[in-house]
Amino acid sequence: MSLSIAHLGPPGTYTEAATLAYIHHLATEKDSESLLCPYPSIAQTLYSVAQGQADLAVVPVENSIEGSVVITLDLLWQLESLQIQQSLILPIRHTLISYSSTLETITKVYSHPQALAQCQQWLEKFLPGVQLIPTNSTTEALHYLDEKHTVAAIASERAAQLYQLPILASAINDYPDNCTRFLVLGKQPAPGGSHTSLAFSTPANVPGALLKPLQVFAEQGINLSRIESRPTKRSLGEYLFFIDIEADASQVAVKTALEELASYTEVLKIFGSYSVLTF
Amino acid sequence: MSLSIAHLGPPGTYTEAATLAYIHHLATEKDSESLLCPYPSIAQTLYSVAQGQADLAVVPVENSIEGSVVITLDLLWQLESLQIQQSLILPIRHTLISYSSTLETITKVYSHPQALAQCQQWLEKFLPGVQLIPTNSTTEALHYLDEKHTVAAIASERAAQLYQLPILASAINDYPDNCTRFLVLGKQPAPGGSHTSLAFSTPANVPGALLKPLQVFAEQGINLSRIESRPTKRSLGEYLFFIDIEADASQVAVKTALEELASYTEVLKIFGSYSVLTF
Repeated sequence: MSLSIAHLGPPGTYTEAATLAYIHHLATEKDSESLLCPYPSIAQTLYSVAQGQADLAVVPVENSIEGSVVITLDLLWQLESLQIQQSLILPIRHTLISYSSTLETITKVYSHPQALAQCQQWLEKFLPGVQLIPTNSTTEALHYLDEKHTVAAIASERAAQLYQLPILASAINDYPDNCTRFLVLGKQPAPGGSHTSLAFSTPANVPGALLKPLQVFAEQGINLSRIESRPTKRSLGEYLFFIDIEADASQVAVKTALEELASYTEVLKIFGSYSVLTF
Repeated sequence: MSLSIAHLGPPGTYTEAATLAYIHHLATEKDSESLLCPYPSIAQTLYSVAQGQADLAVVPVENSIEGSVVITLDLLWQLESLQIQQSLILPIRHTLISYSSTLETITKVYSHPQALAQCQQWLEKFLPGVQLIPTNSTTEALHYLDEKHTVAAIASERAAQLYQLPILASAINDYPDNCTRFLVLGKQPAPGGSHTSLAFSTPANVPGALLKPLQVFAEQGINLSRIESRPTKRSLGEYLFFIDIEADASQVAVKTALEELASYTEVLKIFGSYSVLTF
């Protein structure tokens, strides 16, 4: 049976690389065929699965340098129906792509704001004073390259190969341990695994509203691997909390904690239990 | 004595509006003159004060819809010397600026990614299918306007007036209660006030590492008004926590909490106590 997988595109993005790695993993596990469907934004990628046009969606959720991809968190909260099927961790290695054979003629560098931010120190050292221009994806930045030798783009090595563009400098990210975590989302129940994700809002104007939820997990000996706050968008100072725990939701301790948690939260959403694949 | 105030520019940005409101407040409190110094990025704005080129810096830290301005948090952690002098809350009202007198001819909308995100539903409803192009600031978006009637920009009403550009639609933000909080930062000790900000890292691989710090505040009856996590940039899954508390650091309960907190954290930084001005 063929599986359609929506992902943040166009071809050549890091999300496509994560999707290809995931498909390769699936194919070695079971004999399955997959169809890649690139979408121009994270929102459109997630809507495609929520509305039944694709079976799965692959979107970035967190980078080790730049932090959360907030649109992914906000949509996960809004789109009731999505469950996490898998988490994927991919190393990120940025390259500078240009028709120029020297850094000296470059006056403009195009890329996604996260990629520009992740190469900030390299750019200040080797290309001081150049104009940094944000684009919607690292692949979109490649459209601005021309033969004039004044323009460069930051994208993956794979993107350079795919579009047959020359690489001027490799591994230009400021931190060598640059990784991005992606989520594979679908409408079917989550498969279970080492991690569980959830989010909740707390009753407004209750002092220490976050303390009780955290105590519930500590009392059950459950470790939190991540906590992130997002605005409720109702008023400044009201937040949602996104929590990842290192346990499967079917464990007795987790079941107990989640039942108790419901009494301290306003709205509680469980995004499922899943395993983490590191490439 | 004249006070030089660095801010995220160019003139016409929301940060400039917050800076002008702050200067007006200062002038009514004491007889002072101020010199505005616009900088092209948040990083350059903060460096200018850290390096002594300006007395104060005004930068955005949090929006009620889009959440934290992460570069501000990251630099506050890195630049040891800055203390919070004041917090400013400003309502945000986006306008669509264009030489076109009708929405029908518009094919491209330029703005800062946060402004585009804050008008997402309005854009989908009234300008479906247009190309959304990110810029470094809302004011920069105005440079792309031309007489061709196909281009629009999202910026403040003040920006439209300042550059004498026609407004095509007003109050286009999706949520009417859209506010941004700004920080006024300087090298002098913080003045004291209703709020205190701090940040800490926790020892790596200690389960429940965040619970103890939160308990310390709860035991002293101190309310947290905000908690935000940021990656340490060392490895995926290691975080810094930024906390705002509703109390002055000179209070006995706060002093006790901060002393105890130091024993549960790896690095602890106090950004000072200050008051909040709402415009």
